[in-house]
Amino acid sequence: METFFNPKSVVVIGASNSPFNLGATICRSMNEFSPWDGRVYAVNRKAEAVHGCPGYAAVTDIPDAVDLAVIITPAAVVPDFVDQCAEKGIKHLIIESSGFSEGGEQGRAMQRRIDETAKKNHMRIMGPNCLGVLNTQNKFCCFYGIQQDDFNVFARENGTISYIIQSGGIVVIVLESFSMDVVKANKIVSIGNKSDIDEADMLEYFQQDDSTQVIGMYLENIKNGRKFIEAARRVTKPILAFKTGRTSEGSQAAMSHTAGMANNDEVFDNACKQGGIIRVNSISELHALPKIFTHMPPLQGKRIAVFTNSGAFGGITADLLVQAGLEMARLSPETQEKLSRTGQIFNVSNPIDLGPALSMQTFLEIFDILLSSNEVDGLLPVPSLWHPMVIDAIVELVKKCRYYGKPAAIYTPNAVHKTVTYRQQYQVPIFESPEEAVRALKVSYQNSRYLAMKMALEERKQAVCNRDGELSCGSMR
Amino acid sequence: METFFNPKSVVVIGASNSPFNLGATICRSMNEFSPWDGRVYAVNRKAEAVHGCPGYAAVTDIPDAVDLAVIITPAAVVPDFVDQCAEKGIKHLIIESSGFSEGGEQGRAMQRRIDETAKKNHMRIMGPNCLGVLNTQNKFCCFYGIQQDDFNVFARENGTISYIIQSGGIVVIVLESFSMDVVKANKIVSIGNKSDIDEADMLEYFQQDDSTQVIGMYLENIKNGRKFIEAARRVTKPILAFKTGRTSEGSQAAMSHTAGMANNDEVFDNACKQGGIIRVNSISELHALPKIFTHMPPLQGKRIAVFTNSGAFGGITADLLVQAGLEMARLSPETQEKLSRTGQIFNVSNPIDLGPALSMQTFLEIFDILLSSNEVDGLLPVPSLWHPMVIDAIVELVKKCRYYGKPAAIYTPNAVHKTVTYRQQYQVPIFESPEEAVRALKVSYQNSRYLAMKMALEERKQAVCNRDGELSCGSMR
Repeated sequence: METFFNPKSVVVIGASNSPFNLGATICRSMNEFSPWDGRVYAVNRKAEAVHGCPGYAAVTDIPDAVDLAVIITPAAVVPDFVDQCAEKGIKHLIIESSGFSEGGEQGRAMQRRIDETAKKNHMRIMGPNCLGVLNTQNKFCCFYGIQQDDFNVFARENGTISYIIQSGGIVVIVLESFSMDVVKANKIVSIGNKSDIDEADMLEYFQQDDSTQVIGMYLENIKNGRKFIEAARRVTKPILAFKTGRTSEGSQAAMSHTAGMANNDEVFDNACKQGGIIRVNSISELHALPKIFTHMPPLQGKRIAVFTNSGAFGGITADLLVQAGLEMARLSPETQEKLSRTGQIFNVSNPIDLGPALSMQTFLEIFDILLSSNEVDGLLPVPSLWHPMVIDAIVELVKKCRYYGKPAAIYTPNAVHKTVTYRQQYQVPIFESPEEAVRALKVSYQNSRYLAMKMALEERKQAVCNRDGELSCGSMR
Repeated sequence: METFFNPKSVVVIGASNSPFNLGATICRSMNEFSPWDGRVYAVNRKAEAVHGCPGYAAVTDIPDAVDLAVIITPAAVVPDFVDQCAEKGIKHLIIESSGFSEGGEQGRAMQRRIDETAKKNHMRIMGPNCLGVLNTQNKFCCFYGIQQDDFNVFARENGTISYIIQSGGIVVIVLESFSMDVVKANKIVSIGNKSDIDEADMLEYFQQDDSTQVIGMYLENIKNGRKFIEAARRVTKPILAFKTGRTSEGSQAAMSHTAGMANNDEVFDNACKQGGIIRVNSISELHALPKIFTHMPPLQGKRIAVFTNSGAFGGITADLLVQAGLEMARLSPETQEKLSRTGQIFNVSNPIDLGPALSMQTFLEIFDILLSSNEVDGLLPVPSLWHPMVIDAIVELVKKCRYYGKPAAIYTPNAVHKTVTYRQQYQVPIFESPEEAVRALKVSYQNSRYLAMKMALEERKQAVCNRDGELSCGSMR
């Protein structure tokens, strides 16, 4: 699998100098936009060089060894090129062309021919009908149609979140949104129709991949439910997944897009429960929620303390937390007394109403009191940014959360564009709505619970092993 | 009520030149930021002028007639100033000070004294514990703490949406968000503890107010359920309302913020149903959804046609529409045939997959086919903005929707900051997520249904009147 993300040499089959040629855009981004330093070849009828990549009429004409082939020709000629790749000894193929299983009987017949060639020659195939791979570590990217500006945004700093995404359009939204956030992408893979490599294979890969901390998924169907659950079970990193097809209408629409069977959505829900996958409710949650994992310790319990200097948000967040199955932390008289001593606070019971004016010192004391209290598992701070001091206090809060090992899902009540500006300028994980902040706490708690259950289960297994000796232990695994 | 929004002369009681004086910020915005040309007086201990507003030691010292008093002193001295206002003959008071019903027994006693004076002297009171009024028509604004930049944003072009908001913090978020959208505010009123004027009074006022087209509400409680329902029933404009206190925790938090009884939330839900109020799910819906009413014809039926060139959104929107109780329009073979003839479309059944490349002409033909079809009640277009032509097509779509009398809730699949930029630049109503677009269709349909029911009911009444003669008709009304 590593070759897909870190090839030394690539051939783009179907790249030419014709106007609107999509393969040419791949050559361009590999050879001109990216500092990735592998060799790139083009294959086209005229054997012409494309954006500085030497051109050949056939794959077998390329004089050097090639690690990876990217195919972006009309569907009808793809099977022949797959044969050429087999002859050349290329073991890794990304087929970006569409018109296979999602395109009727003729497409399915071509798909079968490709599958046979691949099987016989031990080739691994990504796609068809996909966008391929982006690796922000080495800046390798075989997406088509990318402009210089987009490339710069997408391949920016190398982050820790990797995505498995069945649709190219969603890749673009997720990556664009990251440019406004504190989290960054690590690797992205768009798997399309999944004729060979599927979501389960990618889960396995990202679990092993050291630079991946969180895994995100956009799926239109599951190729193999059993394999998917098994793979998910082996993953110890948080997995956030969005899947379409909750209704039969949605499921039908997805089928015409990336083929695949119309899955029973309950099967996926069950897979999520068994494999500890967090099912998210929108595309925006896919890019908005990971920061609770990358920038905050996990939420280990349900009890949340809210503090705000915009009284309305006390009620709003209390509603949201309770509706999400979390709890408003009950603060003891001692804790309330400590809070009272910090300064002029309007209301020291949870939700804590800070009132309009607070000093930095008061903020820091409140953070310490709440984070050190065994009555509180996590924080939902809703501070108005009425003074530059408040954002400095938020920066300190993030440090204190790490110190105490408890998370805060911060929301600053203002229009989203202001939130985004502050978040980027200070690189603090601020959520864009109270709903999003509560969801972040919820998914963090969900993940902690799953890991705790899993650990308990493994300890029980271990206890059985220790009692029954090595032999039965081996068989249980 | 008109005097609150259009006074000729105002006294700000509690405005002085002390540092951090909130009253001074009101004098400043009235006298320096705003082109509103009424007279402003200040009342303070030193009888000093504030930001060019002549100062007096008592309200009764002001030589001229005064329409409206804005009180922003410590709670303890408010009752005395209310007495002074009574003596001066001022009939309209906005009490912005806090510390009354929400602040314990002493506060409640002061509140009672104020109520008695007001009753005896036929005075109307807004507040206490509020931010008062903004009227973007004449730029009259008595909010405290407003800076020049904020004022410019808030009082911008005069729009058609008026808000009744119980909390000052929410006022600021809503107004800031409008600066990124195509809709604009008309009048905003922050009613706080509602000792006298309540949400029902304001509904009545905005129903009569010609420049108000849509009404938004943020409530923490309902003062008088019966009065509220009766008022809502008389309103024929769309009302969008957000209320906290869905859970007992949220309700308790709201009580400590703006006093009031902890209402049974079901009572509010019933009031919404009976009064045709659309209950929204978040603060952001309060400012994001009105554009479906101001910029689009109403949705009169459930059948929605989706078209997109980002295949993934076919499945996503189909799920969302069906979950919202709307329907995917079934396109007849004739309609599909017409769509096929427009150009190279991937999939002509709903959701329509436009494929990547389309001409302006093709777009326009698709709009005409769908909007003129009696199989379709509204559109959910999800066009990728891959080419400047697409945004030009959206501009044309808005015109065609008005022509055919059917709405489109447009979502362009990209990061929110791009959406906002396009929306502002082209002044077209684009929603920020597929969820928001579907909610917009849903609330438009909900409002149409309510109005249709109401009209049917009135026609039945009329029929009874015609049969039974004038007398029984009068008694039925």
